[in-house]
Amino acid sequence: MCLKFDHGDRTLHEENTTVLSQRRYVSAYGYEQAKALTFSNYGEPPSVLSLHSHSISPPHNDLMTLRFLASPINPADINQIQGVYPSKPNFTTSLGTADPIAVAGNEGVAEIIALGDKVKSEGFKKGDWVFMKGPGFGTWRTHASATIDQVVKLDDEMRQGISPIQAGTISINPCTAYRMLRDFTTLSEGEWFIQNGANSGVGRAAIQLGKKWGYKSINIIRGRDDKAAEDKLKKELKELGADVVITDTELQSQGIEDMSKEWTNGGREPIKLALNCVNGKAATAMAKLLSSSAHFVTYGAMSKQPLTIPASMLIFKNIHFHGFWVSRWAEKHPDEKKTTVADVLEMTRKGEFRDIPVDEIRWEWETKGEELIAKVKSTLEGYREGKGVFVFGKT
Amino acid sequence: MCLKFDHGDRTLHEENTTVLSQRRYVSAYGYEQAKALTFSNYGEPPSVLSLHSHSISPPHNDLMTLRFLASPINPADINQIQGVYPSKPNFTTSLGTADPIAVAGNEGVAEIIALGDKVKSEGFKKGDWVFMKGPGFGTWRTHASATIDQVVKLDDEMRQGISPIQAGTISINPCTAYRMLRDFTTLSEGEWFIQNGANSGVGRAAIQLGKKWGYKSINIIRGRDDKAAEDKLKKELKELGADVVITDTELQSQGIEDMSKEWTNGGREPIKLALNCVNGKAATAMAKLLSSSAHFVTYGAMSKQPLTIPASMLIFKNIHFHGFWVSRWAEKHPDEKKTTVADVLEMTRKGEFRDIPVDEIRWEWETKGEELIAKVKSTLEGYREGKGVFVFGKT
Repeated sequence: MCLKFDHGDRTLHEENTTVLSQRRYVSAYGYEQAKALTFSNYGEPPSVLSLHSHSISPPHNDLMTLRFLASPINPADINQIQGVYPSKPNFTTSLGTADPIAVAGNEGVAEIIALGDKVKSEGFKKGDWVFMKGPGFGTWRTHASATIDQVVKLDDEMRQGISPIQAGTISINPCTAYRMLRDFTTLSEGEWFIQNGANSGVGRAAIQLGKKWGYKSINIIRGRDDKAAEDKLKKELKELGADVVITDTELQSQGIEDMSKEWTNGGREPIKLALNCVNGKAATAMAKLLSSSAHFVTYGAMSKQPLTIPASMLIFKNIHFHGFWVSRWAEKHPDEKKTTVADVLEMTRKGEFRDIPVDEIRWEWETKGEELIAKVKSTLEGYREGKGVFVFGKT
Repeated sequence: MCLKFDHGDRTLHEENTTVLSQRRYVSAYGYEQAKALTFSNYGEPPSVLSLHSHSISPPHNDLMTLRFLASPINPADINQIQGVYPSKPNFTTSLGTADPIAVAGNEGVAEIIALGDKVKSEGFKKGDWVFMKGPGFGTWRTHASATIDQVVKLDDEMRQGISPIQAGTISINPCTAYRMLRDFTTLSEGEWFIQNGANSGVGRAAIQLGKKWGYKSINIIRGRDDKAAEDKLKKELKELGADVVITDTELQSQGIEDMSKEWTNGGREPIKLALNCVNGKAATAMAKLLSSSAHFVTYGAMSKQPLTIPASMLIFKNIHFHGFWVSRWAEKHPDEKKTTVADVLEMTRKGEFRDIPVDEIRWEWETKGEELIAKVKSTLEGYREGKGVFVFGKT
């Protein structure tokens, strides 16, 4: 089931040739045939999603036609389809429907396969890889028409040695981890951060980035009935660079404060930052391990619980509680986003940043809608081992 | 019952004369007779407090003898006696007991009635007024022995036109309000803050400081069964400078978001700061009225509930949650404390800062311990109308 992409191993010149020689479903008049997972009403993804076929007219002026390479299934995408995500998708009739529809998906990497003159004059060319500038573009589709201001080009040198899956999954999770480690407090080498959901895409990115920058980490994972699997996961995270890995049960056990002191050299090495995607009691328990005047950053709430903070933690321990949303950050700091992505890609190239475990969902031209939607459903229900990523065939 | 202090109406020269001519209980050898509300074990104030008499030897070198003028009963003092306050009092046998005891009370203003040579050489003189530099000194007492580094002198020009009650209640509540309005975000003129416990010492100070600086305020008070009393209080706070005063019931009613929009010019004037001393549901309801990226500062928890924060408030609305503890702030910023106090005293002198309603508890030489402790108990139980302040007779 592993689709081999060869972009990563070629020079740019070869790349362009490859693109040009691809077999494509193009009509006699130059119209690109496209398929997209769309929805016209908010609801549970299996009920509201459908595969819609349409055609894209040849690009002119500031338009370009994109062919998607890899688009992940993120929790935010699911929330967006459910209608509970603050960033709303664009419902439109421009894809040839009577009623407005929106294309699902927010993250992904695409390749320019045709472009208008204005796009060319701004330095884009066929074969360039682009990200979406913000959320809501719709990335769960084989092709799309885009304007210059909707995309960010991945510079040629940044692309070297990078696979589409690596490029297509970098702008949300690794960026989230990177900015949370950097933007709320200044950790010095040898100082600690603590995080829950350590096995997630963000968690794994934080472990690796922290390791590179000399920060130590306490990592909390969900306990498993299968102890062998739990131990395997702990080992895996330690291999990524985690200093300590514990389960949520261990976190909420009696001796945790003593253990924490032991890890941090009797408490002399401060735990200055917490990264939280769980909320509920387990998050409060994590906050209790923080040093005085530390910062606690929430970027998710997998338990679907609110965060409960004792007054003394605020008043006397002076812990600061913040939230982080990568879409807002990227919108406010487009240049910083570019350098953040470049930095992680550089680490990836050097072998310092390992991919998250990915469950590739191959999307060929002939793949049926039901099949794709079933994969979204199984991701939604947590049945998949790695992160679900649509990987598009060369149609 | 109102004890008239005349310090406020005199020049410094007259002041010193007054002090020198006071009748004092001084033994033949120059020992000062003192009484203090003390405790040897943590517990409920009525059970553990007792009035202890002792004598203070004549000061030499870096010692000074203080006569207290006014010492308030703050919630933190009660918590300290109960043993649940992080700043612990000093248990000592230096007051002539076999077992260590601590003197209650953290805030107050005292007058120097005798001083050692080193104290003189550092610019102190008889009749000077001093505050306590940090918490834990013990201010519920008629006299005390202190060293230079335990006190902060109230400069002569700062004292002009200021009563002992004004001076004795300025270093906790008005400082708390002042720093919370200034240190977490930058409010511009015409921008809003919102606070609960608006009727408290901090609340009233925030209203007046905010008004002076051009900030608008939404003020939340506890609803009362007696509607006339509720309306009277609303009117009183508006006279202090409150723009909007509502009850906690009104805050948690359905139409509150629309009302808030109306007050803030359709939401165009942002609510950038919240001050919270209540916690629980009412605090969460207050946070919901904040504008995006606002700051929420907790300095108390009168409901004895924790603070519950929905994840979306952190992640998507980007609200930052902090705590404020004036003791920690003062310890870190001693110079800023002096300028903050000076600023509020200046406002007081100009008639721009009104005293909180005070319930004076007169403490004469002959006042019985049971009587004083009963007053602490009634303050603790909320039976008193104004803030309980010990006002010391000229013993």
